[in-house]
This record gives sequence, C-alpha cells and structure tokens, in this order.
Amino acid sequence: MSNTRIYLDHNASAPLRGDALRVMIDALQAVGNASSVHGEGRSARRMVERARQQVAALAGARAEHVTFTSGATEAATMLLTSEWVMGRAPLHFSQLYVCAADHPCLLSGGRFARDQVHELPVDNQGRLDLEALKERLAGHDKAKGLPLVAVHLANNETGVLQPVSEISRLAREHGATLILDAVQAAGRIPLVDTIGNADFLILSSHKIGGPQGAGAIIGASDLMMPRPLVRGGGQEKGHRAGTENVAAIAGFGAAAEAAAADIGLMGEVEHMRDRLEAAVLRHFPAARIHGRGSNRLPNTSFFTLPDVKAETAQIAFDLEGFAVSAGSACSSGKVGPSHVLRAMGADAEAGAIRVSLGAATKDEEIGKFITVLERFARRRNAKETAA
Amino acid sequence: MSNTRIYLDHNASAPLRGDALRVMIDALQAVGNASSVHGEGRSARRMVERARQQVAALAGARAEHVTFTSGATEAATMLLTSEWVMGRAPLHFSQLYVCAADHPCLLSGGRFARDQVHELPVDNQGRLDLEALKERLAGHDKAKGLPLVAVHLANNETGVLQPVSEISRLAREHGATLILDAVQAAGRIPLVDTIGNADFLILSSHKIGGPQGAGAIIGASDLMMPRPLVRGGGQEKGHRAGTENVAAIAGFGAAAEAAAADIGLMGEVEHMRDRLEAAVLRHFPAARIHGRGSNRLPNTSFFTLPDVKAETAQIAFDLEGFAVSAGSACSSGKVGPSHVLRAMGADAEAGAIRVSLGAATKDEEIGKFITVLERFARRRNAKETAA
Repeated sequence: MSNTRIYLDHNASAPLRGDALRVMIDALQAVGNASSVHGEGRSARRMVERARQQVAALAGARAEHVTFTSGATEAATMLLTSEWVMGRAPLHFSQLYVCAADHPCLLSGGRFARDQVHELPVDNQGRLDLEALKERLAGHDKAKGLPLVAVHLANNETGVLQPVSEISRLAREHGATLILDAVQAAGRIPLVDTIGNADFLILSSHKIGGPQGAGAIIGASDLMMPRPLVRGGGQEKGHRAGTENVAAIAGFGAAAEAAAADIGLMGEVEHMRDRLEAAVLRHFPAARIHGRGSNRLPNTSFFTLPDVKAETAQIAFDLEGFAVSAGSACSSGKVGPSHVLRAMGADAEAGAIRVSLGAATKDEEIGKFITVLERFARRRNAKETAA
Repeated sequence: MSNTRIYLDHNASAPLRGDALRVMIDALQAVGNASSVHGEGRSARRMVERARQQVAALAGARAEHVTFTSGATEAATMLLTSEWVMGRAPLHFSQLYVCAADHPCLLSGGRFARDQVHELPVDNQGRLDLEALKERLAGHDKAKGLPLVAVHLANNETGVLQPVSEISRLAREHGATLILDAVQAAGRIPLVDTIGNADFLILSSHKIGGPQGAGAIIGASDLMMPRPLVRGGGQEKGHRAGTENVAAIAGFGAAAEAAAADIGLMGEVEHMRDRLEAAVLRHFPAARIHGRGSNRLPNTSFFTLPDVKAETAQIAFDLEGFAVSAGSACSSGKVGPSHVLRAMGADAEAGAIRVSLGAATKDEEIGKFITVLERFARRRNAKETAA
C-alpha cells in the first residue's frame, strides 16, 4: 500500500502499536518455549506473565484469571459449551442465550448443539430486548442445566453499546452465567467496571493495536471454567494446551497497556467521528446513520447512503485510498447482507459503510474523507440532474 | 540471555529464521484483516496464500489442501474427532488408535471420548508395534464407524522415526484414515514422499524456525475434513474460524521455504550429533542413548547418564550456558517421568537429557558442550574416588 492510504477500518483490525511491535521484535529474536525450564524458557515465561498482568489491568481483573487463546473466536468457542467444571465437579449448562446482533463467533453457539442456542431480538438500535431476556430466563428449566448468556458489549458494525448493567442484573436474578464479548469495547471505553457486571470477558489483541493471533478469556473469579477446547498439554493451567505464542502474547500485553493509557484520546476520536457524520448528513440528507440514537463507541460510524450500494461505495473509497468496510470482515471476503442491520429491522440489502477510527487517526484524514464524500455527492447530484 | 548462551533445544522451539523475521516485520507493520476486501485486506490475503504455497511445498502437497491453525496442538485437536464430513455427508469415526510414544496432543485423543482412544505399544526403540496395529485394525468393527490412526513420524524426545510405509500399508488394507504428526520431522528429513503415505500431516511453525502461533493441517486430498473446532466465521474455507494471524502465517511460510532449502545441511547436523554422542559414551561409558538402534532424526540425541538425574544435569548445563531439556517442554514447566521412555521399557525415573540441534548449530558449540560434559565426568569420577 502506498503511504497516502488512509486506514479507517480499525474495527476489522487495528494497526499494530509501536510499543507492541517493539516487544514483539524482542520476543521473536529471543528463543524459547515458555514451558522450558532453562533460562530461555524462563525468559519467555516472564514475557507471558507480564502480558497477563497488562491484559488483566485493562479489564480491571486479576492476572491469574486471564487465559490466553489464539484469538477471540477461539475464546468464544471455548466458553460457549455446555460442559464446565467447578473445581473438579462437573457443571452443566443446558441452554445458551445470545443476542441477534452478536458477532458470528457468539451466534454460532460454539460447542453447543444448535437446538440449545436461543437468539434474542434487539430493538431498532440493536440493543438486546431486555423483556425477551427476562422472559427466557424466567422460563428456563434449571432441572436440565444452568442458563448461559453471551452478549457483545459493543457492536462491531454499529458500535452500539448494550445495556450491560441491566443484562447483568437479569442474569444474576435468574442464576445465569454472563459472558461479555468486549472485543470492540476494549481500548475504546473504560472496561474497569465491566468485569463486575460479567462472569467472563472475551478480548482480542488485534482490535486494540496488538498483533493478530492472541486473545483472552478473563474471569471475574476462578470458580468455574469451561472444559478445554484445545487439548493435549498443561499450558494455561491446563485450560488451553499448545505452546504459548510468546511474541503475540507479549505484543497483546503491550497493546493493552498502551490502549489503557490512550483511553483519554477517545474524546478526540469521538469528535472526529461526529464531524464525519455531520458531513455525511450534510451531503446526503437522506443518509441513515445506524444506532445513532443510542450510546455508541466513540470511534465507529455505520451509515447507509441513499441509493448507493455499500459494496460499490466501499470499492470507490478503496480506489480513492481509504480502507473502510461494508459490514464486518469476518467471513473471508464474502460480503453478505448484514445480520446486524437485519436484526435492527433496517434495510440489510442496501448495506452500510462502516468507518472506524483509532487513537492515531488524524483530523486531516477525516477532512480528506469528507472531501471525497463531497465529490461523490456532487457526482451523484450531477447524474440526477442529467437524468 | 547473554550472547554466550548455546541453544540446543530446537525440538522445544527453534530460533526464528532471519527470512521469517523479515516477512513478519513487514506483515506486522502492514495493517489489514485478511478477510477485508480493501487493498490492505487483499495484501494480507496474498501473504497468507503465499505462505500456503510455501508450506504445501515443504510437504509436497497442494496449497489448497493446507489449513492453517494456531499451532500443532490445535491441529491435532481438530483432526482427532469422531465427526467428519465428506462433502456434505457426515462421516463417523468410532475409534482412534494412537501410539504410546506419541506427543501428548495425540495421546489426549483430542475430541474423542476416552473410551474411544486405544494406545498401541512400541518396541524398545519406541517404534510402533505393527503386529498390535494389525490386530487392532483387523478387529475393528466397521459397523460402528471408521478407524482413525494417529502416529508421530519422528519422536520429539528420541528423534526415532516410525515405520511409516508399513503403518500406511496396514491403514490402507484396513480402510483406516492415517494422520501423521510430522511436527518434529519437518525440515529435518524430506517430507515430500510422506504425504503419499498419509491422509493428513500435522505441521508446526516454531519447530522449523518459524514463529510460535502457527501450524497446519495438510491433506493428501480434499475429500474429507473434520468438523471445525474453532467456529463462528468462514475463514480457511469454513474449516477454521477466526481472523488469520497473517504475520505468523507469513513467517511460517518463509520458514518452510528456508527449511526445505536447508535440508541438505542435515548431514552436517547429524555429524555433530554423532560427535556429541561419541563424547557422551567416551566420558560416561555406562550412558544409554535412547533409540540409537533405530533410524532417527539427524538432530536429536536423548541420553541417560549413569547415576545422574536428568533434571539435575539439565540445570547444571543451564548454569554453564546451555539450553537443553530433560524430556519435552509441553507441560508448563512440570518435568515428570518421560512417557516415551516408559513406553520403550526404559528407566523413566532417571529421565534423560535431550540435546536437539538446528541447521545453524556450529561445530564449536558442540565442542564447548563436550568440554563441559568432560568436566562433569571428571568431577563425578573425583567424587567416586573420594567416596
């Protein structure tokens, strides 16, 4: 990519932070299996444990409650299972309740059988229908097993924040265990109080400026854990087998520390996002900005331009040097109608453009984006006049 | 670690190759989710696909039959399952046959229930008992499901090579599917003909000088695949969900290409290993070198010194500046008796020292190791004389 590219797709993958790159280069040049007992192994182990503290700190949790995985999708598949243990005693979850606007890694139900997974509706802002949750939990038959609730904290497409305290209260009242997918929220809103609302958080390294290939499960306690997904070694206290990816974990840790320090910059980011949205509405008065009536992440804008297919607009922006997305990036290049828009009752066929900023996004980059947007609007108006 | 350290634990984790580090630094500084359709995403996608070709080439396989995972343990857990698909048709494996000297990631049985996993004995060199395999496969009741066989190609502790053609012939005769754990063999012996003997190979990046955090399943065809382990996204043709770890995969590819090019250096490596073993026997005439009567990897030596606990010797070597191991490194610092030695009928309690070399190991490093070994022998003899 040329240097003039402007990257506005942080929700797909954020650029690697300098701090993360530095510790990774160190870790990659060191050698050692973190399970080896020689000096090299112990040094690798120290990097992993330092990162565990840094990641825990981002969530206001304790380092010993952090389990590293290869990413958030693995973490979700690990947590979404009917088979758990509390100490040595087995614990059985009979039903999983997810939210229709969740990321596919929750919606898939992980290791649950399809008929154990129940999708709860959202309102026109994409917020979980609390009445539906309450009804489901009240009707849950505990004789068959416990209820598990998995919901995202911030939506990957719209940035809309879920009513987490209410969800948490309902889960507690009905003895449900609550998993919060905090992948998009981390580094963008403070997470420190969130862990008190949930039993488990899921984090991803590459959404906060760490490398791809690392994620974490963070427990509020160490009372209970799911049966391991990846098996055949004692790593991560027996919860996740396989040689630790020391460099990625170290990079994740450094990014977590930097993201926590940068959280104060999010006001600035929100300001740029709002400026961008004002321009969208100025040039395309009939545009729809999804989730705008709700609390949202400061960095995300998801909008539908009238009579413009999102895929077409995405390609046009790409040619102009901007990386933005049409929906999320989780299905290997396949751009299908957004299940989030559909769940919100919006027109999913038209699609929407997602612009997602980061702490390093510059005001002038948003200015350039607005200039291009303006040009698109002029071209469109000229066509309409000609027609 | 100081620069004077000598790293002889390549079977635990090999140092990152320069080629791999270079492509990783490029990949880490680029930004992009390999599933994004913008320029950055397509560039990430190209890195992944290039690596797929490089990894396939190391195994003489086709790129489209390579599925990337977060490592060999994940690959093993993915493959070791009773639930498979052939196209859209389900395929059921009722029993898994593993080898008593396999790596824990195979011995664990992956997703099979404990009572579906059968461990086959080995001879005193650690080679699979072919008669036992034949008997088991002949007695397998196909009405209940198909037989799955999973065996390592080269042992991680002894370096002993399994009689793969015979295992393959037996598997074919009895309609069994054969998975070969080629993690330790890759880059040390040519793999190009191996894929013809197996239905699937498992590879690990960090054992061939790539980064930790990447592994692969390589199929001989694309007829059948296990049900996904990590779910909730369409990546890797739907076989493995989750954002691709582009940098690690790119590093894995570069390492695979470099390892294939370096295979000619393995004669040199074998020469150094043999020199080391000659010194072991010279200074400790009662030492036992495990698997020496068998075909072995050129880089591995696994020996028990008389009256010296392996852990003690490992620590002593560590203090002298050498990274060697006492058994394998797969269980988070816990050094228990070697299940490999036990399976071979050797004295597992005494343990053994594993010295594993790489293409970059220098003759003078082995010379220094021998000097220290000699000193240990002198000290021990002095003690014996004093006693």
